[in-house]
Amino acid sequence: MPNAQQTYDLLVRELKEIALLGSVGSVLGWDERTQLPPKGTDHRAAQSSLLARMVHERFTSPRIGDWLGEIESSSLVTDRESDAAANVRETRRKYERARKLPASLVEEQSRVAVLAQQAWGEARKKSDYPSFAPWLSKTLKLKRQEARCIGYAAEMYDALLDEFEPGETAANLRKTFEQLRGPLVELIGKIAHSGRAAPIEILERNYPPEAQAKLAREAAEAVGFDFQAGRLDVSLHPFCSGIGPGDTRMTTRYDPRYFGDAFFGVLHETGHGLYDQGLPATHFGTPCGEAVSLGIHESQSRMWENFVGRSRSFWKTFLPKAKSAFGQTLKDVSEDQWYFAINDVRPSFIRTEADEATYNLHVLLRFELERALLNNELPVADLPAAWTQKMQQYLGITPPDDARGCLQDIHWSGGAIGYFPTYTLGNLYAAQFFEQVAKDLGDLDAQLARGEFSPLLGWLRHHIHRHGMRYRAAELAKRVTGRELSAEPLLRHLGRKGEMYGAT
Amino acid sequence: MPNAQQTYDLLVRELKEIALLGSVGSVLGWDERTQLPPKGTDHRAAQSSLLARMVHERFTSPRIGDWLGEIESSSLVTDRESDAAANVRETRRKYERARKLPASLVEEQSRVAVLAQQAWGEARKKSDYPSFAPWLSKTLKLKRQEARCIGYAAEMYDALLDEFEPGETAANLRKTFEQLRGPLVELIGKIAHSGRAAPIEILERNYPPEAQAKLAREAAEAVGFDFQAGRLDVSLHPFCSGIGPGDTRMTTRYDPRYFGDAFFGVLHETGHGLYDQGLPATHFGTPCGEAVSLGIHESQSRMWENFVGRSRSFWKTFLPKAKSAFGQTLKDVSEDQWYFAINDVRPSFIRTEADEATYNLHVLLRFELERALLNNELPVADLPAAWTQKMQQYLGITPPDDARGCLQDIHWSGGAIGYFPTYTLGNLYAAQFFEQVAKDLGDLDAQLARGEFSPLLGWLRHHIHRHGMRYRAAELAKRVTGRELSAEPLLRHLGRKGEMYGAT
Repeated sequence: MPNAQQTYDLLVRELKEIALLGSVGSVLGWDERTQLPPKGTDHRAAQSSLLARMVHERFTSPRIGDWLGEIESSSLVTDRESDAAANVRETRRKYERARKLPASLVEEQSRVAVLAQQAWGEARKKSDYPSFAPWLSKTLKLKRQEARCIGYAAEMYDALLDEFEPGETAANLRKTFEQLRGPLVELIGKIAHSGRAAPIEILERNYPPEAQAKLAREAAEAVGFDFQAGRLDVSLHPFCSGIGPGDTRMTTRYDPRYFGDAFFGVLHETGHGLYDQGLPATHFGTPCGEAVSLGIHESQSRMWENFVGRSRSFWKTFLPKAKSAFGQTLKDVSEDQWYFAINDVRPSFIRTEADEATYNLHVLLRFELERALLNNELPVADLPAAWTQKMQQYLGITPPDDARGCLQDIHWSGGAIGYFPTYTLGNLYAAQFFEQVAKDLGDLDAQLARGEFSPLLGWLRHHIHRHGMRYRAAELAKRVTGRELSAEPLLRHLGRKGEMYGAT
Repeated sequence: MPNAQQTYDLLVRELKEIALLGSVGSVLGWDERTQLPPKGTDHRAAQSSLLARMVHERFTSPRIGDWLGEIESSSLVTDRESDAAANVRETRRKYERARKLPASLVEEQSRVAVLAQQAWGEARKKSDYPSFAPWLSKTLKLKRQEARCIGYAAEMYDALLDEFEPGETAANLRKTFEQLRGPLVELIGKIAHSGRAAPIEILERNYPPEAQAKLAREAAEAVGFDFQAGRLDVSLHPFCSGIGPGDTRMTTRYDPRYFGDAFFGVLHETGHGLYDQGLPATHFGTPCGEAVSLGIHESQSRMWENFVGRSRSFWKTFLPKAKSAFGQTLKDVSEDQWYFAINDVRPSFIRTEADEATYNLHVLLRFELERALLNNELPVADLPAAWTQKMQQYLGITPPDDARGCLQDIHWSGGAIGYFPTYTLGNLYAAQFFEQVAKDLGDLDAQLARGEFSPLLGWLRHHIHRHGMRYRAAELAKRVTGRELSAEPLLRHLGRKGEMYGAT
């Protein structure tokens, strides 16, 4: 009869091997999006689904449950901050989620997701919401089934949210988001009516992709991304994939007539990449070597993209670099103009093109609507009208059609419900962490202005990255910043954008 | 109790899934050689060895043996040219090979291979054969053990050769190679003493890599490589990997001061790639969807590289393209000069840099020496002397050191014994096939001169590619050309090179 320590060792070994197999799937995924020849897609789909099935089968094997039970009733997990306690807690959570979903439901969901995404693609092209509505209904019905299988205390939404943001609840999110909404609507309204406009045309000049790529790579390297342990490539939709220790891959895309997408996109993915590169390699394959949640992951990407990358300090060293990279293009641009342009705030229809301030209202709207849809409080047929109403209320604008309204995002068609809020959670956590790191480091701003990023990265490594999933998001934030997550730091940060418009 | 057909279906399903998993390993291998960041190597090694272990475990499962036995005693395999007969025959062969090798031997072989390759790398750098000799002895000892485990009728070498060239024997090879050796030594001697030299300096001019890449890609596409189902990338050592249906990937490398490597290298890999793209996708994962042997695979690469790519006809359309691609570089070059330069024959020390004619003597030498080493007829300590003696005898030159002698190739250090002869087998098969296709098509030369490659490719598809492993190499050659493999076609082909030197 093995003791708990032996059982734990068995569990860890098995988890590591499952993760190793899963990481092969990540290589396939990266390759699919950056390298795969068009005619290779069927074979690739077969490879990927075989791997996914093997990973699922091994992870849901009853022996994992037996091992967990044995360890849970031992003294190994008494210290709840120990590796073992964290690994067992989070493995139990994932195991239960995986076991509770019947294979038939999972299959039906992937089948419907493929068809719903096709229908969504067509519907968006024609801005034809009614043709997509039945697929949204089907998807919601399956998601409700999923929530019931998994179980929840307060409401169905929590069961779905928990997949992306372990331990988070809709009620708690709503409380935080409510703090944010009023002041943000007010700030954006003031800016819109300030009579001042950022000189955004300077971002729409001639930016040769080669020069963009060089500068973006230089920035990623400067802030600490290790290119000996990672790559930067091109793909249609930018992403970052932490394949495993020593192998983190980011992508971006270059628009020769727009500076913002690639440069801030790369800083964003670099934030994800730095987190992946900072996770403890020895814990690879177990929760102690994994990211806390999508929200915390996003806090890292948003921090480097927005809190660092859109700061005046950052451009003290990078504007001269950009000027030398793009020659004539930026010759006449002053630091003030540049800073104003990259911090422009203005209501717009498309979330992925939104600025740092309005972005959060796009997310709040989606959170509120998807929650209402799931709870059957909003009929699927009424979504476009509800969307328009909220856009008017929050951003003061009216989408000209559903393509630029409720049909713009792929998420719902793929069954990702409970995902959107993690974007704004990321901003909230980033703001609260960033205030704390400024306090802890003393002269963060001066460091950034000198192009010194290692104290900030060191702080993140120490307070966040090295812990893996040891603490859940809310607990981590409280440990690191001494208080509960609040909307105030983000509002303070965004408030500074109002100053440029004389809107304070 | 299932009938034989049901068992066969089970077998095919299992083989296809094992191959699918194996093809994931091919993606990892390609990625490792073209994309992997340096610090990702440990994780990649762990991924690859996990996959290899899983593939091995599934393929050597006793149930495969049971299924094979059941089908072998049924009427399913009565027609020995049927899919079932070929699939069962070749699967049995691979299964027996895999089952007969004890795991301990396989492990010891990979352990020694890693160390021996390191020792070889060091030894080659310092041209220090004695430091490598003990590793060669260890490797040979393990290969003899392997041969004994697998079993053989005539001699140990056959058991090793069979891995690369199913059904081939050392005695048979020797007979064919003997036909080749004398006349080839004579031809090369005459050329060396002809007093004429090809203007090879025109190949060593300024060839910008971008222009090389464009022209090589154009050539690959012109001869029929489907870039919708494949790629061409850069790697240190060129290779072609047929990952699966719709996904065949080639690599090359570009030397800005030498035309030959990349262009003919790409045509060579294209030959492999066309074979992979021509294998029947419906049979993927079973022998009927796999290449016959390394020799037949090589016959395809050599045919496109040498029989097509170094023909005068080919350059009727491609020399003008090359002239326009490289501008000044080729301005003064006539078709005669170009043809002579790319068909240069001259004895040299390094196999991989050898011309089409001398290349085969490099191979014969290695075949003879590795066979003697394996049979304990040549002591390991005497290898350098034996090497030098044969170089003098075959090519009339004396290697200045062992680095440019018996230490030049990686093969033996990695345990690849019985591999070298497949290179010359490739040339022999290519020559015999090419004479046949010229006969069958009537005006092949005129077609090539017009840049029409699809009749030739169509012939290869029909007579060779579509069959997969239905016929073994020797049988295939006989079916397609009406006679046994002979050295005469290759000698006729190489003899034409002598004409340029007035050496006939």
